[in-house]
Amino acid sequence: MFEKVLKDPVHDEILFDHSLIWSLVNTSAVQRLRRIRQLGTSYMTFHGAEHTRFAHSLGAYETMRRVLLHLERECGWPSDERDTLLALSAALLHDVGHGPFSHTFESVLGVHHERWTKRIIMEDPSLRSILDEVDSNFAKDLVSILNKDGKFPCIEALVSSQLDVDRMDYMLRDAMATGVSYGQFELTRLVRSLTYQDGHIYVKRMSLHTVEQYLLARYFMYVQVYLHPVTVGSDVLVEKIITRVRDLLELGHEIQVPPALLSVLTGGDSSVEAYLRLDESVLIYAFHLWSEDKDEILSDLATRFLNRKLFAPVVRDKPSVSEWASLRTIAKAMGFHPDYYVTERVSHIPGYEVLGQGITLVDNRGEFTDLSQVSKLIRTLVPSHEHRLFLPKEMLESGSDPMSTRVKSIIYDRD
Amino acid sequence: MFEKVLKDPVHDEILFDHSLIWSLVNTSAVQRLRRIRQLGTSYMTFHGAEHTRFAHSLGAYETMRRVLLHLERECGWPSDERDTLLALSAALLHDVGHGPFSHTFESVLGVHHERWTKRIIMEDPSLRSILDEVDSNFAKDLVSILNKDGKFPCIEALVSSQLDVDRMDYMLRDAMATGVSYGQFELTRLVRSLTYQDGHIYVKRMSLHTVEQYLLARYFMYVQVYLHPVTVGSDVLVEKIITRVRDLLELGHEIQVPPALLSVLTGGDSSVEAYLRLDESVLIYAFHLWSEDKDEILSDLATRFLNRKLFAPVVRDKPSVSEWASLRTIAKAMGFHPDYYVTERVSHIPGYEVLGQGITLVDNRGEFTDLSQVSKLIRTLVPSHEHRLFLPKEMLESGSDPMSTRVKSIIYDRD
Amino acid sequence: MFEKVLKDPVHDEILFDHSLIWSLVNTSAVQRLRRIRQLGTSYMTFHGAEHTRFAHSLGAYETMRRVLLHLERECGWPSDERDTLLALSAALLHDVGHGPFSHTFESVLGVHHERWTKRIIMEDPSLRSILDEVDSNFAKDLVSILNKDGKFPCIEALVSSQLDVDRMDYMLRDAMATGVSYGQFELTRLVRSLTYQDGHIYVKRMSLHTVEQYLLARYFMYVQVYLHPVTVGSDVLVEKIITRVRDLLELGHEIQVPPALLSVLTGGDSSVEAYLRLDESVLIYAFHLWSEDKDEILSDLATRFLNRKLFAPVVRDKPSVSEWASLRTIAKAMGFHPDYYVTERVSHIPGYEVLGQGITLVDNRGEFTDLSQVSKLIRTLVPSHEHRLFLPKEMLESGSDPMSTRVKSIIYDRD
Amino acid sequence: MFEKVLKDPVHDEILFDHSLIWSLVNTSAVQRLRRIRQLGTSYMTFHGAEHTRFAHSLGAYETMRRVLLHLERECGWPSDERDTLLALSAALLHDVGHGPFSHTFESVLGVHHERWTKRIIMEDPSLRSILDEVDSNFAKDLVSILNKDGKFPCIEALVSSQLDVDRMDYMLRDAMATGVSYGQFELTRLVRSLTYQDGHIYVKRMSLHTVEQYLLARYFMYVQVYLHPVTVGSDVLVEKIITRVRDLLELGHEIQVPPALLSVLTGGDSSVEAYLRLDESVLIYAFHLWSEDKDEILSDLATRFLNRKLFAPVVRDKPSVSEWASLRTIAKAMGFHPDYYVTERVSHIPGYEVLGQGITLVDNRGEFTDLSQVSKLIRTLVPSHEHRLFLPKEMLESGSDPMSTRVKSIIYDRD
Repeated sequence: MFEKVLKDPVHDEILFDHSLIWSLVNTSAVQRLRRIRQLGTSYMTFHGAEHTRFAHSLGAYETMRRVLLHLERECGWPSDERDTLLALSAALLHDVGHGPFSHTFESVLGVHHERWTKRIIMEDPSLRSILDEVDSNFAKDLVSILNKDGKFPCIEALVSSQLDVDRMDYMLRDAMATGVSYGQFELTRLVRSLTYQDGHIYVKRMSLHTVEQYLLARYFMYVQVYLHPVTVGSDVLVEKIITRVRDLLELGHEIQVPPALLSVLTGGDSSVEAYLRLDESVLIYAFHLWSEDKDEILSDLATRFLNRKLFAPVVRDKPSVSEWASLRTIAKAMGFHPDYYVTERVSHIPGYEVLGQGITLVDNRGEFTDLSQVSKLIRTLVPSHEHRLFLPKEMLESGSDPMSTRVKSIIYDRD
Repeated sequence: MFEKVLKDPVHDEILFDHSLIWSLVNTSAVQRLRRIRQLGTSYMTFHGAEHTRFAHSLGAYETMRRVLLHLERECGWPSDERDTLLALSAALLHDVGHGPFSHTFESVLGVHHERWTKRIIMEDPSLRSILDEVDSNFAKDLVSILNKDGKFPCIEALVSSQLDVDRMDYMLRDAMATGVSYGQFELTRLVRSLTYQDGHIYVKRMSLHTVEQYLLARYFMYVQVYLHPVTVGSDVLVEKIITRVRDLLELGHEIQVPPALLSVLTGGDSSVEAYLRLDESVLIYAFHLWSEDKDEILSDLATRFLNRKLFAPVVRDKPSVSEWASLRTIAKAMGFHPDYYVTERVSHIPGYEVLGQGITLVDNRGEFTDLSQVSKLIRTLVPSHEHRLFLPKEMLESGSDPMSTRVKSIIYDRD
Repeated sequence: MFEKVLKDPVHDEILFDHSLIWSLVNTSAVQRLRRIRQLGTSYMTFHGAEHTRFAHSLGAYETMRRVLLHLERECGWPSDERDTLLALSAALLHDVGHGPFSHTFESVLGVHHERWTKRIIMEDPSLRSILDEVDSNFAKDLVSILNKDGKFPCIEALVSSQLDVDRMDYMLRDAMATGVSYGQFELTRLVRSLTYQDGHIYVKRMSLHTVEQYLLARYFMYVQVYLHPVTVGSDVLVEKIITRVRDLLELGHEIQVPPALLSVLTGGDSSVEAYLRLDESVLIYAFHLWSEDKDEILSDLATRFLNRKLFAPVVRDKPSVSEWASLRTIAKAMGFHPDYYVTERVSHIPGYEVLGQGITLVDNRGEFTDLSQVSKLIRTLVPSHEHRLFLPKEMLESGSDPMSTRVKSIIYDRD
Repeated sequence: MFEKVLKDPVHDEILFDHSLIWSLVNTSAVQRLRRIRQLGTSYMTFHGAEHTRFAHSLGAYETMRRVLLHLERECGWPSDERDTLLALSAALLHDVGHGPFSHTFESVLGVHHERWTKRIIMEDPSLRSILDEVDSNFAKDLVSILNKDGKFPCIEALVSSQLDVDRMDYMLRDAMATGVSYGQFELTRLVRSLTYQDGHIYVKRMSLHTVEQYLLARYFMYVQVYLHPVTVGSDVLVEKIITRVRDLLELGHEIQVPPALLSVLTGGDSSVEAYLRLDESVLIYAFHLWSEDKDEILSDLATRFLNRKLFAPVVRDKPSVSEWASLRTIAKAMGFHPDYYVTERVSHIPGYEVLGQGITLVDNRGEFTDLSQVSKLIRTLVPSHEHRLFLPKEMLESGSDPMSTRVKSIIYDRD
């Protein structure tokens, strides 16, 4: 009997009872996730948020293991060992393509971690050879699941939907690491609320409030943690650093860039092997290099990040064209290049989505309803967004400086 | 009224009510601790152990704040605001000199984080200028406390003794991050068990079992977490990587070494400014560089670390000279340079120490006893150690390879 | 310095630093609350829910202590020691008039625990003499606070409003005891969100989501715990037992009734002294006596309660007059007196109330808004109710019994 | 598939997957345990300690379920469904014979709850008929297990030994309810440390520290919770009340005694049916009756219990004959009958026992050792005891009363 156990702060223990999964855990592609934080720059706001995508991947796997145990026991699904392995592997590998501060990189450089996840599964030699041990279509089927092609609807739903093992693990893990209670929900009960019927996963009607609690936990995590203004300000700073480096490279400046980073920055089509060398230690090291660069803007921005002198967030409506022009003018006058120091950012708070992907409840009589039809609370969870401006603190806090006063009058007066 | 609050997974909230302390937190010297893990390589064993020395420093500060609140309320000490600030600053800054994987670095290179802590306090310009705002002797007094010169006996005891705010925070924090219950104890009660009398800190006799629990928690953390064989094996690997780099540098090989690391590696007397540029991102980045070095030993060792192909630990007595020679011979024959691949390591489990530094209980009648006199449990906590050998897994697991069989017969047969 | 500490599963420690409060805790009136469960019959559903009104009263006191510490520190209120004592005493004593399974008793017998709370404060000799030690108006002022006369608006709001120390403690305590996470919220942050201004308590605008979480926790506790159908079925059973006893007494039957219970049952105006002898041990003992009564209905009902053979809950719309008549007819035919065995119950889920008692937010500019104006989530929290029928399980589950089939067709078919 | 789930504060969920066990839970004999506290009078010291033997019995069952799941998976034992049912039933029913404040009753009246447990299993009609559904020897085999006859050595060890499901549940449950961390240990890991070999249960050698932690948790629970002086003082008070009632009954006084209590008090051989009517509500109700008895000693003692005016504990050596005589003389002079108001009590702290019942470790080579041979810590856990005197507080605290001064000089001066 194969058995490995890892101690986990969220699930107590993570149990491996298939040697295949354990082999996957020990590939360099999965181990690399130890060097990528789950919550990007959130640790700048919540000093506990140092947990990694590696820990989360293990947790998503463990949650999947428990979900399958429940469904198999109660509904006889999955009856096929291969389906079990597909579901477990998909849960473990779903984030394997993430890079450092992924979401920021994606917005500046158009890199997409989902695309990398699939390429790594197909192309990384050691990962692939383990998957091929099951059969030669196993890797392709995993990619199909991540693509949501519809070939494995239940596994797809459990891996990625509004009620999936990914979110179940990350909310509890993010809540524990940051120290907030906002992300807590009844995991064991939620797992038992799932049911399988005719090729689809549903939620039992009687578990309505358990799902409500889970979705509200997600809402609270967004407004209190994921979109915390200090975190968004840190993201903006990272974005500006990368933008400045790219701009300088385009202008032909000589900047030190770790090789693993260079191809991603220049948009060259890097190989899987090269991509896997990129992690947060590389990026932070680059920030160290850049903090001593001769370009003053770059060195200032990188130093700010390392020493946590973040941009100040200002919550307000979209500035008018003239307000915007004024802010840029003052920034320049105060010595801050407006392209890098004055930023507007819109943060999106996701809602509950019905169309084509809602959570379907099934009652004792076998009748189906969408969750939103029976829950007023859930119907309030519509997508929303928040406008924020980010500026150097100096623009706001320079005491009696008339320019600072002017900035404050622009951003706070709304008449 | 000054007030800043940080959310913390261990203490719920960390409250700053002195602007001095908040200024210290925001220096680059303290922020750098975000880039140094509290438990070094333990994250290789416990994937949750990613918490930083920054988080711990905040926690030690918060624990000190609560201890002082209690002592001030119950015993009127400290009556002097300057003492309060000294105690809080000392708690916050006690680890500021730590570098990446400090204990390993110290054993190979003779660097001592305590020395760096004091130098940083005295020499880092921005830290120093904040401390000087209190008065011109404040920094010197902090160093005196860390030196345990005896000038501030109570603060010294609270910062560093067998019952100090350092341990109180790190046991709870390490336990939470790893997910074990071994390090838990009754913090609030322990804080209230402290009492001040005639210039010294004592523990109330009636809190005997609370202190026992705390000291046993420490014992369990050592045997279950801090000296876990996989963690020690990771330390050995780091040590061997650094040793190999140093050896190659001495031989005049050209190796890429990040500048912040170079002066530490070559033993040059680096400046505080240079030292503060060194953190774990720099070291891990160096491992990346070295994993592609042309020296095969270095590149193999660094790759092992990055991919978590750690040395296998073997718990056993000190090998005899001839056993030792045989192991080295076989290692060489299997292609492993014995200086880097066959290691013996003795791990020390600290005990309760009476001499000159015991925990003194005081009863209702004002009589003093050393804790060990009244607790049989505590008397069993004598220092001990464990011998272990570390080898590449390949030396033990190469199936029917007769050399592997021979290795196993050497290390396991004890007749 | 006066200090007593009690260990508490919710707040870690409950600290008494006024001897007045400690004296109140040790009165027989307060100690009696040890014999009254906080959640009435909920322990029939959640076996952990054995916690008492005594524990909750201590917790409400401790929460008040922390709220006052915060407000005093941040806003300088209360500046008057007498106000502090009033607030702490009111928090401790707010439930002192509760009797066994209060809410059920109240609905059948028209007893009101609030009225008893005030009478006990004014009339219990030992309680009163302690309160009189402050001054001769102290007891009267406490009653004024519980009456919400408007003389002490801040203390009144902290003791009883939609955001009071009562709810703050009971949600966390009920959640912990039952083992659910539904009632959890960020207590420390919520306490810090409170602010005092010009004689009133407000919530800081920036703490919007903290209050949302707290109010949603309350909603979840109602739907998942407080109004759990099994609990409501237990309440119905208690109600029917009491009703039957009262009916039999009115008919002149001789029934054993513990004296402390008799005056309450017969509606006689009992003295405070007599009322304080009534607790859950008396009531449960009465159930023991009645389980052997010669009246078959009474003995059956009491036996059902003791052995947890509760009524089965059926969630459905209000039955029509003819459905109702049919159910009663069948009950009678199956040997169940319909007045005691067929019950309809409407459970009310409270919403967020704006009128005259909303939660008012204050922003940095000193502008006020009602919480519901800025929170869509909170606006969904409108009062609602659930209709349920309660019948003996035998009426539903008697296999092929045609009457049981008929019952099922009446209550489940809705066409 | 049969499945019932109860929410539990310790184990999250208690899962019933055998209808037999669920039927046992719903017998009146098991439901009666809801009316008996797990920790007797501990709630007088720790106000959270209201949890019942019912909750603990469910928890012991759940722990057994998890132990069997592990052993079946890893060692193929139990292979027989009947053994599984025996083990689960034994865990659920092991405490069914407990009465109110059992340990106190046992010491005064010689009642033994173990004897009652077995009688109830054999004689309670509804319990018996459920057990007989398995087969006609099932009840007898259960009794054999509780007797530790040696017929089912593994189940016996899991139900009652130094490492059994009883202790595993009660330590965690008592710790949670009281709010202390002293009883915590790594349950999941401890369960996995168990192994089955040749008809016996062992602990894996590599889990040494996990077992150490568990046994030390037990030690701490004894010294900090179970033998807390205030709790022992409450026990002494209950003992004295019962003694006084028995003495009065023997003298022929007329005292109101609830019938369920009478036969136990008079030592008559009561029937199982009568015994099952006895619970804590009956006893507390009797205290109410007695608090108004015309016998002043009885009424004073009962009132003290209800109002928590407990005896004051004095920790000290066994008093000499003359000290003892003096204390009794003074008590009498102060109006306290010495037989009921001056008590000596020796509390026993159990140690780790080797003889015939030690915990046996088995290592990878299949070699056995007793735990105490390899653990110095465990060897310190030898049985010990604490002498205490209990007196009315008035004897110690009557200010300047010369008798009170004399009492203090007798009990505190040790020269």
